[in-house]
Amino acid sequence: MSVPLLNDRDVEFLLYEFLDTEKLLERPRYSEHSREIFDASLRTAKTIAEKYFANHLVEGDENEPTLENGIVKMIPETKVAWDAFANAGFLAAHQDYEEGGMQMPEVIFRMVMAYVNAANIGTAAYPFVATGSANLIRAFGSVEQKAKFLTLIMDGRSNGTMCLTEPGQGSALGDITTMAAPADDGTYRVFGQKMFISCADHDIAGNVIHMVLAKIKGAPPGVKGISLFIVPKFLVNDDGSPGERNDVVVAGLNHKMGYRNTTNAALNFGEKDGAIGYLVGEANKGLGYMFQMMNEARIGVALGAAAIAYQGFNHSLDYARQRPQGRLASCKDQLSPQVMLVEHADVRRLLLAQKAYSEGSLAMCLFGSSLFENQNSAPTQELRTRNTQLLDLLTPVIKSWPSKYGCISNDMAIQILGGAGYTREYPVEQLYRDQRLNPIHEGAEAIHGLDLLGRKLSLYGGAGYQFFKEDVAQDIAKAKDFEPIKNLAGKLENAMDVLEKTTQSLQQQMGVDIDRGLANATVYLDMFGRIVGAWIWLKQGIIAAEALSSSLHESDEHFYRGKLQAANYYIEWELPAIEQYAELLQAGNSVPFEMQDEWF
Amino acid sequence: MSVPLLNDRDVEFLLYEFLDTEKLLERPRYSEHSREIFDASLRTAKTIAEKYFANHLVEGDENEPTLENGIVKMIPETKVAWDAFANAGFLAAHQDYEEGGMQMPEVIFRMVMAYVNAANIGTAAYPFVATGSANLIRAFGSVEQKAKFLTLIMDGRSNGTMCLTEPGQGSALGDITTMAAPADDGTYRVFGQKMFISCADHDIAGNVIHMVLAKIKGAPPGVKGISLFIVPKFLVNDDGSPGERNDVVVAGLNHKMGYRNTTNAALNFGEKDGAIGYLVGEANKGLGYMFQMMNEARIGVALGAAAIAYQGFNHSLDYARQRPQGRLASCKDQLSPQVMLVEHADVRRLLLAQKAYSEGSLAMCLFGSSLFENQNSAPTQELRTRNTQLLDLLTPVIKSWPSKYGCISNDMAIQILGGAGYTREYPVEQLYRDQRLNPIHEGAEAIHGLDLLGRKLSLYGGAGYQFFKEDVAQDIAKAKDFEPIKNLAGKLENAMDVLEKTTQSLQQQMGVDIDRGLANATVYLDMFGRIVGAWIWLKQGIIAAEALSSSLHESDEHFYRGKLQAANYYIEWELPAIEQYAELLQAGNSVPFEMQDEWF
Repeated sequence: MSVPLLNDRDVEFLLYEFLDTEKLLERPRYSEHSREIFDASLRTAKTIAEKYFANHLVEGDENEPTLENGIVKMIPETKVAWDAFANAGFLAAHQDYEEGGMQMPEVIFRMVMAYVNAANIGTAAYPFVATGSANLIRAFGSVEQKAKFLTLIMDGRSNGTMCLTEPGQGSALGDITTMAAPADDGTYRVFGQKMFISCADHDIAGNVIHMVLAKIKGAPPGVKGISLFIVPKFLVNDDGSPGERNDVVVAGLNHKMGYRNTTNAALNFGEKDGAIGYLVGEANKGLGYMFQMMNEARIGVALGAAAIAYQGFNHSLDYARQRPQGRLASCKDQLSPQVMLVEHADVRRLLLAQKAYSEGSLAMCLFGSSLFENQNSAPTQELRTRNTQLLDLLTPVIKSWPSKYGCISNDMAIQILGGAGYTREYPVEQLYRDQRLNPIHEGAEAIHGLDLLGRKLSLYGGAGYQFFKEDVAQDIAKAKDFEPIKNLAGKLENAMDVLEKTTQSLQQQMGVDIDRGLANATVYLDMFGRIVGAWIWLKQGIIAAEALSSSLHESDEHFYRGKLQAANYYIEWELPAIEQYAELLQAGNSVPFEMQDEWF
Repeated sequence: MSVPLLNDRDVEFLLYEFLDTEKLLERPRYSEHSREIFDASLRTAKTIAEKYFANHLVEGDENEPTLENGIVKMIPETKVAWDAFANAGFLAAHQDYEEGGMQMPEVIFRMVMAYVNAANIGTAAYPFVATGSANLIRAFGSVEQKAKFLTLIMDGRSNGTMCLTEPGQGSALGDITTMAAPADDGTYRVFGQKMFISCADHDIAGNVIHMVLAKIKGAPPGVKGISLFIVPKFLVNDDGSPGERNDVVVAGLNHKMGYRNTTNAALNFGEKDGAIGYLVGEANKGLGYMFQMMNEARIGVALGAAAIAYQGFNHSLDYARQRPQGRLASCKDQLSPQVMLVEHADVRRLLLAQKAYSEGSLAMCLFGSSLFENQNSAPTQELRTRNTQLLDLLTPVIKSWPSKYGCISNDMAIQILGGAGYTREYPVEQLYRDQRLNPIHEGAEAIHGLDLLGRKLSLYGGAGYQFFKEDVAQDIAKAKDFEPIKNLAGKLENAMDVLEKTTQSLQQQMGVDIDRGLANATVYLDMFGRIVGAWIWLKQGIIAAEALSSSLHESDEHFYRGKLQAANYYIEWELPAIEQYAELLQAGNSVPFEMQDEWF
């Protein structure tokens, strides 16, 4: 395989230089781990990704799952990949030793996922959704539920799903109509239809554990009346084997532009007597439980975006280095040999932008994962709380920035390949199609804008936003010590002032008229995202500048120079757009808001 | 069909208000035409588009052409569409009455094409390429060649192709290696391979007339040694019927992300004794001939981009008006009915941006077509020359702006539909895939940046650029008379100053170091494009402001208010990005230029 999935030097950099992952070994939970164990896990993940995921990227795209007599059929390579991932223990990576898990730190697990995501996002979705479901049961399920269902997912005998969306409500969960009626035996009977359910059915594992949001009869209206249920496809026998078929069926498959090897279906619950469901935790608290897992799921989606962008970058770089094309303008000799694409300045611009987006996205997601890790395992409650509050603020950005710029990055990869990139002979067109889902699922872009501006900024009395400003200021101060990035630090400092002014202005506008004040929230999200992107690149720039101040092996010198150049690119070329946004936002520009339906 | 192909009120506006198409009737060439005839042609085009093109949009996408024993097979609806277009006389639209043509003005023909493009770009490519080939023969072919080949295309018995690209050269035409050897009878024998040839073969017409660039043995190296040949698939009998098979075969089909009903193939010329070719015009002048048709072809590609964007806009508007989703933030009653998507401010922003891109693209292309018309039929030589020079300057922009923003526009259409937009149940995902070709073919984006900055600005001693500044200044002066757009005029005026300073700076930088000075040409192209986009919208704004100053029917009032709002949107939201570009360009920012291969 000539084009690597990620860049192993960058993986090492992100885990052990950008993040101090070795420091986690000091925490009791990870005392039995070591850097060697981490690295061995990643080598295993990479091998599995190359061998069992990348091998059917195209085949899975060309042969999407089919529904025959109610049974979903998939290409057999999917099950082989699932089994390889399960057999490596990765489905149980998060879980405790005593539960049979690996107690793997979040950032290591996400890097495992980054490899399989880069290899084949359509197949990687199965373990992604499964581990999310497992974590939900682990966090909120009863001891019995864990014994019965969690173990099934951990060893690969079942996958899991997240059943939130319904045909009639899209992003507004308060409007769901799926109902749950209590039965005499303490279980529930679930009735309703769920839509756009990823990995909803398949033939790769013996069972499917659906995590279903539904309303118990008589529950309060809106989001406060939502409960969470476990609804298995097959009822589970005491030995864990699949028993009687539950009353849940695939109503139809969705045929998508990309992510095609991921089954996506409408599910009907309770066409007969009702699907047997088990209430998780307390009634009416389901949405809260789901949201506590949402940060993890959202970072997970963004990590997929990062990995797809990374693959596009790697493929277009490989092509640009090998494809002769034309000459530079300064060359007047038409008989001289053609130069490689990479020698054209605009191709380098497209590559450098992709580097900034893809490496920046991976760094941003891992940074988010480290906050997630810390909210659970940091040594003090104060630190855990701080990390939760910062993560809650940043989650809309960490979800959205890689998803948005991942699409732009994959678009650039196609452009470098030109006509060849538009054909299915190269993977860049599939990556472009796969990527397009990411700004839609786990909350469409606009939802995250509203969440950030309307909710997260002021959550915990604004503590998360305060921590963010403190942390950025600390890195700015540090960066000022290094000549090569001093000026970048200054630019980010100015950007933070602009952000603060804009935030204050918008909060004031929202106080006057909430709809008008929130109208441009998506633009605010992009502005915030560019600043977080610049911060992530400044952080990398600091490490690179420090490393370059001493003598290095040639390959390391190249690596750090590349990081520095990408930091320069991002902060000089992409950050300044915030000035224009700030002007529109601070002025409360209402041109889109005031557009009327009948004027279109 | 609930979603219209274009917007008939806008079509009327563009032809008769934005452009003064009726004024063409004063020209001798169009003296036998009338507005009624124009409108009747457009009604015919719309009917054909709805009935014979739109009907197989999805089918053509799902069943792309196949190659069986050297024969290309397509879905039969393609031939029906081709015949309907030919039978309406549209393949001969451009040609003179005495040649059996319609003497149709360019802008009317392009609007005809806009309808079929909007209905099905994959099928519309056949008449598009055919009419381009026909115009090439008409302009440069001999009387005998016209009699023999042109008539075949005009009545639909043959299509045509443009064979420029080869596997080894991509965008650099000087490097083509296809050879033509003179034969004793005055014809040539052509040997070589052409790549990415659209409509290269099919079963919709009896013959294919390939327009082939090749080098005659002993010709000068590079672009000055390129000649143009007619190479028919079947030699043509005296009665026009297909005779003996010529030595040109389909070497293989390209399988594309979109535009799937357009055959795209590699062609082998001269696997046996050489394909018989007929030299067009003089030897070694082929590239010049081709380039004289290029402006037309490039506007044609951009028009396709405009039409695909327009369809995405119409579909997402239709969906946004019918799909209930959530509530506004100001609504605290969770039991109140859901509002339609269009009531959410961010959806209106996405719709308004699409309106600005798609209507703006159609307007920009038609404006370009009017320059093309004028270069041929304006009453004085001075005017004809002026139009040529302005068109030459603007062609890179008219090609690139709709292609680039068309992609962004179709991306927004998907976003409005959310999960539904990512499925193949709605056409927006196909439109997104179809659109992605447009920034690649007929010159990739970077090529146009180099063309604009490196060549067109200084062509004719800079006359085209001078005319551009004069014309924009005139519209700015006009706009200042209207209160609702006065401020927009001021913003464009400032932008023109910024453009001028940036242009001067870049020309100076190019004088010092041509490679460095051209390094950011793509960014300059985008800057120029935003300014032309703003100008096109200011022009529309002037008409709208004038119309709104008197009393109007309600529907017209809505129409003009929409135009005004889109003009406001484009100039206030999209134009200001040029400030940031100007800073990078004027500073000669060399971050991408200085990036090194080994740093990636």
